[in-house]
Amino acid sequence: MLSNLTADRPTFVTHLECSMTGERYAADRLHGLSRAGRPLLVRYDLDAVGAALSREALTARDTDLWRWRELLPVRHTGNIVSLGEIETPLVPIPKSAGPNVLVKDEGRLPTGSFKARGLVMAVAMAKELGVTRIAMPTNGNAGAALAAYATRVGIETIVFCPEDTPEINVREIAMQGARVWRVNGLIDDCGAIVGKGAAEGRWFDFSTLKEPYRIEGKKTMGLELAAQFGWELPDAIFYPTGGGTGLIGMWKAFDELEKLGWIGSKRPRMYAVQASGCAPIVRAFEAGEEHAERWEDSHTIAMGIRVPKAVGDFLILRAVRESGGKALGVGDPAILKAVDDCARRDGLLLCPEGGATLAAYREALRTGEVDEEERVVLFNCATGLKYPMPAAPQTLDRHAAIDFDAL
Amino acid sequence: MLSNLTADRPTFVTHLECSMTGERYAADRLHGLSRAGRPLLVRYDLDAVGAALSREALTARDTDLWRWRELLPVRHTGNIVSLGEIETPLVPIPKSAGPNVLVKDEGRLPTGSFKARGLVMAVAMAKELGVTRIAMPTNGNAGAALAAYATRVGIETIVFCPEDTPEINVREIAMQGARVWRVNGLIDDCGAIVGKGAAEGRWFDFSTLKEPYRIEGKKTMGLELAAQFGWELPDAIFYPTGGGTGLIGMWKAFDELEKLGWIGSKRPRMYAVQASGCAPIVRAFEAGEEHAERWEDSHTIAMGIRVPKAVGDFLILRAVRESGGKALGVGDPAILKAVDDCARRDGLLLCPEGGATLAAYREALRTGEVDEEERVVLFNCATGLKYPMPAAPQTLDRHAAIDFDAL
Repeated sequence: MLSNLTADRPTFVTHLECSMTGERYAADRLHGLSRAGRPLLVRYDLDAVGAALSREALTARDTDLWRWRELLPVRHTGNIVSLGEIETPLVPIPKSAGPNVLVKDEGRLPTGSFKARGLVMAVAMAKELGVTRIAMPTNGNAGAALAAYATRVGIETIVFCPEDTPEINVREIAMQGARVWRVNGLIDDCGAIVGKGAAEGRWFDFSTLKEPYRIEGKKTMGLELAAQFGWELPDAIFYPTGGGTGLIGMWKAFDELEKLGWIGSKRPRMYAVQASGCAPIVRAFEAGEEHAERWEDSHTIAMGIRVPKAVGDFLILRAVRESGGKALGVGDPAILKAVDDCARRDGLLLCPEGGATLAAYREALRTGEVDEEERVVLFNCATGLKYPMPAAPQTLDRHAAIDFDAL
Repeated sequence: MLSNLTADRPTFVTHLECSMTGERYAADRLHGLSRAGRPLLVRYDLDAVGAALSREALTARDTDLWRWRELLPVRHTGNIVSLGEIETPLVPIPKSAGPNVLVKDEGRLPTGSFKARGLVMAVAMAKELGVTRIAMPTNGNAGAALAAYATRVGIETIVFCPEDTPEINVREIAMQGARVWRVNGLIDDCGAIVGKGAAEGRWFDFSTLKEPYRIEGKKTMGLELAAQFGWELPDAIFYPTGGGTGLIGMWKAFDELEKLGWIGSKRPRMYAVQASGCAPIVRAFEAGEEHAERWEDSHTIAMGIRVPKAVGDFLILRAVRESGGKALGVGDPAILKAVDDCARRDGLLLCPEGGATLAAYREALRTGEVDEEERVVLFNCATGLKYPMPAAPQTLDRHAAIDFDAL
């Protein structure tokens, strides 16, 4: 019953390469950024993957993340770590978004967010490559996923988060066996501390895209979508974009699937959704820039996408442009209204970042950027339960007469 | 891709019957308790189910709750309501429980708890039978599931919960479109208000086991376990028991599967786990009683199993005894220690009720009630994220020199 976790299967990583220069790096070694200071991408012998695995054989496997093993970097089955990485469901929200919109509900993953996808892969590879001590900056959910998986394999973990990170995230990280510190700054201030410690050799730096394997885990969002849509892809994807690993990962997945011949050349338009209060990618997109400047004075309730400066900025912008999509900013009031509408009308509680994708979709519909006939996927990247909700404090006295008409 | 939700499939309900007297009731009508004041059980033409559906055909379907359609009461495909009821994963917790123990992680279901299984079915049937207004007493999670599904199909909902119900539950219920009231009492005090309103014709009473379809939804826990274990069953199941619907439902599922010839006669020993501070089933089990008296002065941190009096008491006790299992009580300190251990060592954050099953397993191992070689399933009935966690407030000053040795 745990076959994808225990079956020995062939693996096909050939090398890593710099996402900027194309310079090659050896597989099966510990790497951070490339010599050019850019993310490394994992490359596979896709012809050999295609010879070893058919769509039909893939489809017959249990539907968890590890079914994609031949397209993942872990060599040794014994290094797989798992807390039950299920295929996340697609949930229609007809009343708040219309009949052709599906929410991919990533809150169902271990530790309640899509960060589990990236971190389960990065931790498995850290185990495979002998890492014993990890540090990471986080807005909350990535730290929780890292803590859970690293604890499970016995890797020591230290996590830094902005001081206004929601209490539930900080506590969850600590409960799951990591040491966690708040920092009076934003996520890139936390990243600076992690970088300094890494430079001193105190730990391995697990920052977004600064190690090569989180993107391979996030890639499975694209692989799953292809399988769930019957090897066609939706017309548009709205993705909440902070560090952008998932968007870059999905774009990579679609490319690999096409090279395998499992999908055609049609791609969804990729919409990178940011909060208006922290929208470096939107600004760079609109200015036609290849890179995004740091966004000063970031503020938004959607803390998961409060990322002033993304190391993979050029990869996000490239994927969005190649896809014919856009980078879109939405304000906090529109985010809150989207979360409220979706819960109150469709019974689905989104996280603020997920709400941002619904808000962006609505705006795109209004401006004609998307058509209501198009098949659209919105990413709800975490369970809405981790976020503050309005109070509802009403108490009835059971000893008094109940006024049923007033209930 | 949504085939179990949209495929028209035959259904096989023949009638309902009183769980105490066996008196028959017509299918496809609205029912509460039987004339004897006991829960009604749904009966199927299992010979016809077996002729219509094979294990192999079942296994080829997508692995969500609705794959079991032929063993469920919903007649019309259009009445299916769904927020993505995935098959929940089995997660090993080797460090805190040993190599043969799996946690069935029900926190991955919509609204974060196993209550979704019962309520998705009850709401679909309420829609099918024309109900327009529902009320329910809840310790939190059932109300959240009811709110989400009822909102989705446009049924008006009023929920009553004890005044010390966790704030997150109360807010979640309100966010998802229900009207929610706190009551200065326990769940049976809330139930009394619901019953009074129902008697006045103000709403339909959705209390545990007072309508017949929640148990059919909860039954899917047993169906899934059978499929996940390759049509054998584990040696023992530890189940957190408040109203006991899930335990009764699983027992019913195993019976139906055996009549279908899909499993043999071997059954797991069923362990009904309660908190020592509210253990009416344990007391009745130990006294050899068929029914359980109300437990006065209930108190436990595991609020989901703080149920002083269960209407299905005799069904729980009957299943536990027939299985060769026991009813076991565990104290709050053991529950907290189990939650802490499992998170800190295995990276899996249990809810307190899930922690109770781990605590009970440990105690059963100590007394020789179970053997460490036996295959055991513990039910984690909700995501641990809904529950209070210890504070972890440490702040670093990014402007000061970091003492890395102290991190």
